[in-house]
Amino acid sequence: MKKTIALLPGDGIGKEVVDVTVEILKAIAEHFNHQFQFNYGLIGGDAIDQKGTPLPEETIEACKKSDAIILGAVGGPKWDKNPVELRPERGLLALRKALDLYANLRPITTFDSLLDSSPLKKEYVSGVDFVIVRELTGGLYFGKPSERIVRDGEDSVVDTLFYKRSEIERILVSAFEIAQKRRKHVTSVDKANVLESSRVWREVAEEVSARYPDVTLEHMLVDNAAMQLIRSPRQFDVIVTENMFGDILSDEASMITGSLGMLSSASLSSSGLHLYEPVHGSAPDIAGKGLANPVATILSAAMLLRQSFGLEEEAKAIEKAVDNVLNSGTRTADLANGEKAVSTKQMGEEIKNAL
Amino acid sequence: MKKTIALLPGDGIGKEVVDVTVEILKAIAEHFNHQFQFNYGLIGGDAIDQKGTPLPEETIEACKKSDAIILGAVGGPKWDKNPVELRPERGLLALRKALDLYANLRPITTFDSLLDSSPLKKEYVSGVDFVIVRELTGGLYFGKPSERIVRDGEDSVVDTLFYKRSEIERILVSAFEIAQKRRKHVTSVDKANVLESSRVWREVAEEVSARYPDVTLEHMLVDNAAMQLIRSPRQFDVIVTENMFGDILSDEASMITGSLGMLSSASLSSSGLHLYEPVHGSAPDIAGKGLANPVATILSAAMLLRQSFGLEEEAKAIEKAVDNVLNSGTRTADLANGEKAVSTKQMGEEIKNAL
Ligand SMILES: CC(C)[C@H](C(=O)O)[C@@H](O)C(=O)O
Ligand SMILES: CC(C)[C@H](C(=O)O)[C@@H](O)C(=O)O
Repeated sequence: MKKTIALLPGDGIGKEVVDVTVEILKAIAEHFNHQFQFNYGLIGGDAIDQKGTPLPEETIEACKKSDAIILGAVGGPKWDKNPVELRPERGLLALRKALDLYANLRPITTFDSLLDSSPLKKEYVSGVDFVIVRELTGGLYFGKPSERIVRDGEDSVVDTLFYKRSEIERILVSAFEIAQKRRKHVTSVDKANVLESSRVWREVAEEVSARYPDVTLEHMLVDNAAMQLIRSPRQFDVIVTENMFGDILSDEASMITGSLGMLSSASLSSSGLHLYEPVHGSAPDIAGKGLANPVATILSAAMLLRQSFGLEEEAKAIEKAVDNVLNSGTRTADLANGEKAVSTKQMGEEIKNAL
Repeated sequence: MKKTIALLPGDGIGKEVVDVTVEILKAIAEHFNHQFQFNYGLIGGDAIDQKGTPLPEETIEACKKSDAIILGAVGGPKWDKNPVELRPERGLLALRKALDLYANLRPITTFDSLLDSSPLKKEYVSGVDFVIVRELTGGLYFGKPSERIVRDGEDSVVDTLFYKRSEIERILVSAFEIAQKRRKHVTSVDKANVLESSRVWREVAEEVSARYPDVTLEHMLVDNAAMQLIRSPRQFDVIVTENMFGDILSDEASMITGSLGMLSSASLSSSGLHLYEPVHGSAPDIAGKGLANPVATILSAAMLLRQSFGLEEEAKAIEKAVDNVLNSGTRTADLANGEKAVSTKQMGEEIKNAL
């Protein structure tokens, strides 16, 4: 198979974890006789420094010429005081919009060898296995107006939570499709007792649900969902929710496993050009020190192989290698609990050798 | 002291827990030689059934004639299919607005005797002691438009996150005032990398902070806050945030202690007429069975005595009685872990006897 992958390392540890992941992808290409070509692109702070914008046109072009995208992470204190349009995160938001990456998928699963790293008690987290499906291109993130105004003579500010019904429908369809291949349960999270958008969301969820008679649908209020994620996370199979709720709940959920450095994500688009990235951020405090855990990005690459290229065997090979290395006790600093920690590169080497 | 307290038991277990709390208040009045008069009012589903509206005018009047308000809980499956304006929660939202109850305070503290009830490991939760200050009368909850629209020929829906700068300022002032009497650290939670309202929020927080040089201010993004609450809850002293973020984070935080039945809250108004209520809901599944834990409401009454009436000694007496009863091993069903559970009334009796 011959494929092109766009690589957007971004800022901070983004570069380090993408570098290591490329090595794994090269090894996979060799073992399984594929050809992967890599197109590098600038995004985030790095792009601001070099091109004066967090998302240069060339980067969008490089993505569009590729079959899938791997992103590292964006952001850092260096750009924190910049005006909004010159912040690294703007690059990420603009990319989501430009490529219509509307469905953000975050699997939350526990690794048996890491059960003890969770702040939650083992009996609460063992066996947790669910996916959060977050709407990624609508809601409060992109609604207009989003501006300062004067109302009744008073300084005020307004943001807008806007959704087309069709945008709500397609993300719910994604969730039901995913649930069909899993344990067939969708938890749709909203705030229908307060928001009109949530009431529409609930209606659409019911409509879509009727087309998937083998999947059960449950509605849950977002405040309750924030509780249930801690109280009994095993109850979930697929959680689907709008952009801002998804941002909050998925970060909360990432704490369940206690191993943020292990969590991967996919952002799927309508066009078939999907983006894969670790859940963690750019971690400026440890950047450049070889301390970062590359596993989240490596597992994101496995998602890419499966989802974008249909390479199930190759994806499994990576996942198994990661499992084996963890079971052998190899740990990066974030996971080390007494054990001697290996560097980002060493972790990559170990996984490559285990392939 | 002669005072009038409005009692709005509401639905489900609301009635049971308010009944027991009234007994405690009567005992306090007797011991300490006060006169408390009680004004009952309808709210929620009960009010819909009896008056055709979730917040009858008489209830607002009864509140306005009182010096403080105790609310039980509202809601239940019976009214879930009602049109929005005839839902129990509407009564609560309308009351908040009518009385300008803009500052919702939720203390999150662990009880040593209940440390094991948390889903989180003991070493994460022991010593946790913070307050969430949630803005309660603005933001997405009340912004207009909140309606279905057609845009570009497509069915769409819009909700509005609106704040006057003065509304943001007064809630931040509340937070700093509270922090001054505590460990002097405010964590202001927003989503400034996405929302204009959050950027104004951050500016106002800086301005207000300058007036409280002895209090430190930290900004935290809401997604990160959702993680930090689980990862290291002891870092917080006072968390202040807008309405919807506060709804989600405070419910998440209530899980830290693992004892939702213990958590009280106060909603403070500009006029000085404040409302006190348990954090838990109406729990229709256990309503009328004597299973409810009345402690959250009893502790809310203690907050009332302290905050609204300045009766510190009386508030302490209640809090100490609750502590003693818990230390003696008395547990309602929600907290029982092997021990035989006592009923709502028995729990109330024990606390009364311990006064
Ligand atoms: C960087 C930020 C704008 C972004 C978001 O809020 O979507 C991040 O938190 C995420 O979840 O990918
Ligand atoms: C009942 C509901 C409208 C309410 C809210 O969202 O404010 C509740 O969840 C709360 O936190 O008091």
